[in-house]
Amino acid sequence: MADITQVILERRPNGVPQASDFRLESTPLPTPGEGQILIKVHYLSLDPYLRGKISGRHMSGGVEPGSVMAGETVGEVVESHSPEFAVGDTVHSFSGWCSHAAVDASTARKVQSHGLPLSLALGALGMPGLTAYAGIKRLADIRANDTFLVSAASGPVGSVAAQIARLAGARTVGIVGSPQKSDWILDEARFDDAINYREEDLRDGIRRTCPDGVDVYFDAIGGDVLEAVCEQLALQARVILCGLLAQYNSKERLMGPPPGLIIRARAHMHGLVVYDHEDLRAEMEAKNSAWIHSGDMAYNEDVADGLENAGEAFARQMSGKNFGKSIVRIS
Amino acid sequence: MADITQVILERRPNGVPQASDFRLESTPLPTPGEGQILIKVHYLSLDPYLRGKISGRHMSGGVEPGSVMAGETVGEVVESHSPEFAVGDTVHSFSGWCSHAAVDASTARKVQSHGLPLSLALGALGMPGLTAYAGIKRLADIRANDTFLVSAASGPVGSVAAQIARLAGARTVGIVGSPQKSDWILDEARFDDAINYREEDLRDGIRRTCPDGVDVYFDAIGGDVLEAVCEQLALQARVILCGLLAQYNSKERLMGPPPGLIIRARAHMHGLVVYDHEDLRAEMEAKNSAWIHSGDMAYNEDVADGLENAGEAFARQMSGKNFGKSIVRIS
Repeated sequence: MADITQVILERRPNGVPQASDFRLESTPLPTPGEGQILIKVHYLSLDPYLRGKISGRHMSGGVEPGSVMAGETVGEVVESHSPEFAVGDTVHSFSGWCSHAAVDASTARKVQSHGLPLSLALGALGMPGLTAYAGIKRLADIRANDTFLVSAASGPVGSVAAQIARLAGARTVGIVGSPQKSDWILDEARFDDAINYREEDLRDGIRRTCPDGVDVYFDAIGGDVLEAVCEQLALQARVILCGLLAQYNSKERLMGPPPGLIIRARAHMHGLVVYDHEDLRAEMEAKNSAWIHSGDMAYNEDVADGLENAGEAFARQMSGKNFGKSIVRIS
Repeated sequence: MADITQVILERRPNGVPQASDFRLESTPLPTPGEGQILIKVHYLSLDPYLRGKISGRHMSGGVEPGSVMAGETVGEVVESHSPEFAVGDTVHSFSGWCSHAAVDASTARKVQSHGLPLSLALGALGMPGLTAYAGIKRLADIRANDTFLVSAASGPVGSVAAQIARLAGARTVGIVGSPQKSDWILDEARFDDAINYREEDLRDGIRRTCPDGVDVYFDAIGGDVLEAVCEQLALQARVILCGLLAQYNSKERLMGPPPGLIIRARAHMHGLVVYDHEDLRAEMEAKNSAWIHSGDMAYNEDVADGLENAGEAFARQMSGKNFGKSIVRIS
């Protein structure tokens, strides 16, 4: 029987991950047991939270060196030992970085395309889309004419969040790290303004683009970016914390913004974990897919081809060099 | 005409204020102008936020060396040039540390005793009471069986907040710094448990008294206390920030708790400034005074006699040695 391909975590990265922290391995096609399905993987999702997992510190558990690297995928059922799934079904699972996997049917769910590319189930219609949707719907309390600021603005969480905020009446500003990303958020995702922190002092950029202060900040970064924004919050600002990119590559635990900044602004700071908002998934998929079809929501993907390039693509993402949702297409 | 007494800020304190940072001055009785009232002061309020003012950094403005020290007072109108006030009215004002003051009538308000000592208008029925009431009513979202934790628990904000939380169904735990304070919050203010951080490691104490985590934390401290509590937040915890005692005596701007702790708990952190909640004052006075009369709310005061002892009383307060609401009684 044909061998399959897996990517193994070779070692815990030191700082920004390198392609060499991962290695390819061939292994025999797994045999699904009772209650399991065999999946042929089409798309692998690369996400910042995986950096926490390979340090051994993430709320969803760590990945040990020598193990198959963790990650969400979209694939096709090629053998089913579960009444819930038929051969040919498209499924989302946590199969990890591999060409095929046998997984418990209870950990997989069927994916609808909504007439859009299946890879979107890992981006604007998947976990990042749900993070953005739940954050805006449940925590951001967007009011008309709010100034909405987001970091990592060309990524799948930031760009979707800002576009939903715009549709709710907010003025949107994005923080990005390249002219290409700045152009995309302005031209395609229709942000009102952009700050390229590599070309402009971040604090100056916030003052320039948010002259009346920041009403809502959607943060995936932490560290100095979060502090800089908190210095310029409007009264009654809302700050949504959903990631710690500034910390993932570091051994230090970075502290939060000075509480005096939160008090001064009478701000409301909310921790967001997407797992809590599963009940919104169907609503999110319906809304986001409709907005994509109508042209109200843009998305972009950074696609690498083949598992052999997954490590390098992940290293690129973790140094901020990806542009859009990082996906690996597996032939 | 008789001289009056004022307390002048001699210098900006270095670290914990000393009595010698203040000096007494005699000055002629002021003459109230049109729209002003002359007040004979009965009680002066000592409050932690004054430490920020004498560093020159507080949102309500600073106090310059050589000026009369700022503070809230309760007194009696002895001369009125305003149709709003009659001689004999009891008033609250921001007259500062002085035996008499001429103030604009627009900055004063009449005080009701509610059948209780007038000094309470500076404590459980005044600004601290309103801070506590608004924090619980508008931000804490108390649910039955919540574990409510408060620092500076024998002080007027912390003790009132916890007692309102208890009346709303919460289990209450207080952080204090002496056995005397611990006894008072347990026996008089009827907290369910107490942590004396001078006798027990704070983190151990939180684990011991809040085994299921902290649902609501009311913070007037910041710094390491805030961080320690955030390490043990329950899911969906609420953290109310209303002061920065840990920072007032320091030149450093202390950072906040790591955002990862907020995310992990899906916590909600709110900045509270009492000035925003003036609309709740009448309701707060009615409720708190009724609870005091019925025995459901205890209060305690740390009373110094005479303006000549105000500096020392303030120094005592800022080193945590006061016990209860710090008041100076002016004969």
